[in-house]
Amino acid sequence: VNSPTPSRITVLGPGLLGGSLLMALRQRHPEVRLQAWARRQESVEEVLKRNAADHASTEIASACEGADLIVLCTTVDSMSSLAKEIASAKTAPNCVVTDVGSVKAPVVDALEEVLQKSGCQFVGSHPMAGSERAGLDAAKADLFEGAVCILTPTLFTTDHALQTARWLWTLLGCRLLEMPPDEHDRKAARISHLAHLTAVVTTLAALRPDISAADCAGNGFRDTTRIAAGDPAMWTGIVGQNRNEVVAALKDAREALAELLETIENQDYKGLLQLLREAKHLRDAALSRA
Amino acid sequence: VNSPTPSRITVLGPGLLGGSLLMALRQRHPEVRLQAWARRQESVEEVLKRNAADHASTEIASACEGADLIVLCTTVDSMSSLAKEIASAKTAPNCVVTDVGSVKAPVVDALEEVLQKSGCQFVGSHPMAGSERAGLDAAKADLFEGAVCILTPTLFTTDHALQTARWLWTLLGCRLLEMPPDEHDRKAARISHLAHLTAVVTTLAALRPDISAADCAGNGFRDTTRIAAGDPAMWTGIVGQNRNEVVAALKDAREALAELLETIENQDYKGLLQLLREAKHLRDAALSRA
Repeated sequence: VNSPTPSRITVLGPGLLGGSLLMALRQRHPEVRLQAWARRQESVEEVLKRNAADHASTEIASACEGADLIVLCTTVDSMSSLAKEIASAKTAPNCVVTDVGSVKAPVVDALEEVLQKSGCQFVGSHPMAGSERAGLDAAKADLFEGAVCILTPTLFTTDHALQTARWLWTLLGCRLLEMPPDEHDRKAARISHLAHLTAVVTTLAALRPDISAADCAGNGFRDTTRIAAGDPAMWTGIVGQNRNEVVAALKDAREALAELLETIENQDYKGLLQLLREAKHLRDAALSRA
Repeated sequence: VNSPTPSRITVLGPGLLGGSLLMALRQRHPEVRLQAWARRQESVEEVLKRNAADHASTEIASACEGADLIVLCTTVDSMSSLAKEIASAKTAPNCVVTDVGSVKAPVVDALEEVLQKSGCQFVGSHPMAGSERAGLDAAKADLFEGAVCILTPTLFTTDHALQTARWLWTLLGCRLLEMPPDEHDRKAARISHLAHLTAVVTTLAALRPDISAADCAGNGFRDTTRIAAGDPAMWTGIVGQNRNEVVAALKDAREALAELLETIENQDYKGLLQLLREAKHLRDAALSRA
């Protein structure tokens, strides 16, 4: 039996991801009623001015009333306390709750526990879409098109919740992967969180001594450091929630950097060539998987 | 007095950069006679088949005959020995020689010495254009459009050579910067060579333990590691020629990585936030300069 299509969807946090979600739903599922929650009154007004949602409020109870699908698009730090308010809101029966958080195990653990006694059903999602820009201004209806979205069902996940999440992200143009929350966190640490931190390392090492070096920047530097322009508070939250995996990935980066440095200091250009070949091979093989 | 516009230009090494140079000159300076040198006969035939040059040869003497501008588009390792052959070719009087090498001090030192007793006049150039792809197949006429090109004149550089190099790169759409060779190498180590090596570090640390993590890759990982797919032999040559500056930059990267790791291991999220803010500030300021 297929789950019924949601008719009332609430987005919490209409920033880059939440705003893009609202815009995409408006385009691809025009019969749905869209509701939004924002922390600040100005954001609520901005959402309504743009007609990004049919109803918007700074009150969770008001924004979630009657919803049969709720998507948390806030920072990972704040999801647990928001879920408590969702649990006491008058949502529709069997309301599905999901999120877009970059870390899954702590979010899934917390939200399953908070929501289990409410009528809501939770499943974690992580659409691998984003930008170094933030906020509703940067939102766009096709942000999720072609992106990978990872769903992280557990033993507690209902069929209805999983089907609804699959429906949502497929509608938005994502390619779906499913894996346990801890596998997600291990892989995201390597691929996403590490890349953010090495972009920070590159930027600091390149520009701290003399920012005028930036005058010589080509596309290589621009691309390699782009994500270092992302929101520092958001990334601090992500790293904090996935600390152990991030530390393991950073230690491997420290080791790889030491290997490179050693070959170069020793003028071991055979060894350097070997490392550059290994990286090229891995990068080429990785992209042919994607 | 303006220098006369070159009427016969020879490109050595019709790969990504040399091939793009030939195509751009054909478009923007159609009256010029284009000559090309390639090491392999198949490359010569490919150049002629595509009509990328009017004459092509595996012999330096033949490819450089009558040239009033010669551009070395080979790896930095090979430039000094090629310049010796240029010095004994029958070039036009006051022939200007320049290059596209990513390292300048050793190239400029060697080529000024080799060419000083010939009738040729050298000035170093470094257009900050490229791609992780290589070869004539990847060449395109607009590769240089909008790129920064750094000229590195010295006390030995003639006005004619500098004017001719300025004419060339301006014609191709570059924005010009001029600085001494050692300043170029210090800045290129920070901006370009370091970014390459940190992309290698990110790739190795991300994918060595488990390449299936690549299934989760979003744009962030793709952009941050793109240049790690570049030609390993070419990059080994560049790093070797700019060893001292690259080692200094890598040591700063090692230090920045250690700082990040320490804040995360100590759960010092205030310190982490501060580092991410510093990087964002530098990246934003750097791009507003470019």
